[in-house]
Amino acid sequence: MDLHKLIAGLAEKNNNKIIMLVADGIGGLPMTPGGKTELETANTPNLDALAKIGVQGMSLPILPGITPGSGPGHLGLFGYDPLQFIIGRGALEAAGIGFACGPNDVAMRCNFCTVGQDGKITDRRAGRIPTEESAEVVKLLRAVKIPGVEIFVEPVKEHRFVVVFRAEGLGGNVADTDPQAIGALPLDPVGHDEASKKTAEIAKEFFNQAKKILAGQPKANCLTMRGFAKRPSLPSYEELYGLKAAAIAVYPMYKGLASLVGMEVIGQPATLDEEIDVLYENYDKYDFFFVHFKYTDSRGEDGDFDAKVKMVEEFDRVIPRVMELKPACLVVTGDHSTPAKMASHSFHPVPTLIVSELARTDACDAYCEMQAGCGGLGHFEAKYLMPLAMAHANRLGKFGA
Amino acid sequence: MDLHKLIAGLAEKNNNKIIMLVADGIGGLPMTPGGKTELETANTPNLDALAKIGVQGMSLPILPGITPGSGPGHLGLFGYDPLQFIIGRGALEAAGIGFACGPNDVAMRCNFCTVGQDGKITDRRAGRIPTEESAEVVKLLRAVKIPGVEIFVEPVKEHRFVVVFRAEGLGGNVADTDPQAIGALPLDPVGHDEASKKTAEIAKEFFNQAKKILAGQPKANCLTMRGFAKRPSLPSYEELYGLKAAAIAVYPMYKGLASLVGMEVIGQPATLDEEIDVLYENYDKYDFFFVHFKYTDSRGEDGDFDAKVKMVEEFDRVIPRVMELKPACLVVTGDHSTPAKMASHSFHPVPTLIVSELARTDACDAYCEMQAGCGGLGHFEAKYLMPLAMAHANRLGKFGA
Repeated sequence: MDLHKLIAGLAEKNNNKIIMLVADGIGGLPMTPGGKTELETANTPNLDALAKIGVQGMSLPILPGITPGSGPGHLGLFGYDPLQFIIGRGALEAAGIGFACGPNDVAMRCNFCTVGQDGKITDRRAGRIPTEESAEVVKLLRAVKIPGVEIFVEPVKEHRFVVVFRAEGLGGNVADTDPQAIGALPLDPVGHDEASKKTAEIAKEFFNQAKKILAGQPKANCLTMRGFAKRPSLPSYEELYGLKAAAIAVYPMYKGLASLVGMEVIGQPATLDEEIDVLYENYDKYDFFFVHFKYTDSRGEDGDFDAKVKMVEEFDRVIPRVMELKPACLVVTGDHSTPAKMASHSFHPVPTLIVSELARTDACDAYCEMQAGCGGLGHFEAKYLMPLAMAHANRLGKFGA
Repeated sequence: MDLHKLIAGLAEKNNNKIIMLVADGIGGLPMTPGGKTELETANTPNLDALAKIGVQGMSLPILPGITPGSGPGHLGLFGYDPLQFIIGRGALEAAGIGFACGPNDVAMRCNFCTVGQDGKITDRRAGRIPTEESAEVVKLLRAVKIPGVEIFVEPVKEHRFVVVFRAEGLGGNVADTDPQAIGALPLDPVGHDEASKKTAEIAKEFFNQAKKILAGQPKANCLTMRGFAKRPSLPSYEELYGLKAAAIAVYPMYKGLASLVGMEVIGQPATLDEEIDVLYENYDKYDFFFVHFKYTDSRGEDGDFDAKVKMVEEFDRVIPRVMELKPACLVVTGDHSTPAKMASHSFHPVPTLIVSELARTDACDAYCEMQAGCGGLGHFEAKYLMPLAMAHANRLGKFGA
């Protein structure tokens, strides 16, 4: 039986609230084998107090040994099998700038490029045109008009931008137009099924109009289109769990990912303290809160062990304010590990803590990798975290009699 | 590869005996987070002695977060994926009174109801007619005769009873006849495929004859039929494991569930001591013994922490007698957790202990949730417990060369 059907059939509505605190990239590594991780080094009295009354385990973002990107990492946390629900590159790039694709949208990642008089590419990234300059050129492209299609053109960074076509009956199965070589012409967009042929026609028309608009530009005088994708067809939190869900995040990517599963993105917080303010202001209005803390991942990506330790302590500092709300179930986790030692996402499982009246206390007295590895929740695929959270909030009924 | 095909292909016959002691609902919760569970509170010197030489782990009855009913809980313990093999309501109700459905049987749950002179329902439960009274009326229905069909009518409790039709070629896909409303007529039974149409015809004839028989009754003057179901098609213990299996239980439900997988139900024990007597008397005749202890679950369902602790100690008391039989493999487990704190089945995993010459001793020195959570068997879906038991009894061969 499909996990989603099972959960949707057992979900019960009540007033028990769930807060999921996601410290991005929280899991780490000792700088030297045998040493302590960032989490084990940090002074985290508040998380450790929760570890004493809660239950810990290890969340496997995908499968053992597999390092997730932010997209699949969060899909898993949200309860969607990241190997079953694939977010296409275009839809992920759109999510990354906080643009939530609707069901009729096809999104693509575009690159400005430079072409010579013969139309052949001389620079695939338009000299890595600076972001501010690029954003101005992107605005010019909003002049493209195609009857029956709503078009969104949004800047990303340097030569990269996002284009979204919104119209009924479009397919996402269109080949990239980037020839991946200089000295070549941009390729014609080719659709691989009827709906995608329609998208390819629109893309061709977009390209032709865009080329005319860009003709006078010194560097960004042409474009290539890649990663055409519709958003994945995900059942919403309301459909799946019967939860009215809210997302509180600083960075656009996480707001975008949360909207893909039907969470409402609330507030405009700029710091973790402001995120908790937003949580307080909206606590009565939702059943479920996804609160995203970015900087544990950022400092990990920087390869800065000590700075990541400080960010863990920063995260620990807000725990008492969260607990004052007395959620029926608090989940503390991450979407993946980002060890400073690797300065990148890693495959290591993520220490995960559940606090609830229904948590079966284990032997752990600190929130960290070493203890989570032998905690009462065991090691589980991240897609089971939402069923566990629902159960600990007493929101899942019995299977069979 | 299908788990059952794999195991059936590897199963080897020898004289090594397996005893599975199931303390129903054994897993618990501390009354206050950070405290001790029932099992951790109980004085269990015999189980703890086994924990020192055996190996422990956590059995997940279904999947993380999912609370099982007794049906799916036991199917998992018996090695059948409870999400693949669904016991229909009628077949489960029959099992619940110890009636083992055969392959040609369709079982249904029936309710006595009260109808007015116009045939419309005035009370869907016939005034919750007392069990003894109801049982007498049930007997009257045994006068119903339908050519070519063997019919069983058995009382359950109050207004509820079970009817089983036995004949070749009957289907179980028949809609309920309970209109779920008063002031409505009982519905005609409708079959959704050829075989089920045949069942529906029989049900209609049964209903018509029954109505005449019941006409004079003050309260139970009509009936509705629900949850039509054939028994799930389960390979037997003999087919799957090459085990001649016996079930020893006090309560009809567990005898019924065991017969569904081809176990022979032996003895008429009324207490745990008598169950162990039956085990002794029959020890030479079978390879596998399922011994069911009910009262850990019952006291959990009562919400009585201290009484459940006593029942755990009662269970512990018989361990030395069981060990004197020197089984090749002893399994101690439960079909689910029933924390007194929740007064119901719960989703929490079940501490599970295996004692065998082949058990790889872990660090545990007590049988309890806290230690089982980091024991040598890890956390595993219950359907893997039988392969583990078979392996620990040296009854599973090598896969591949």
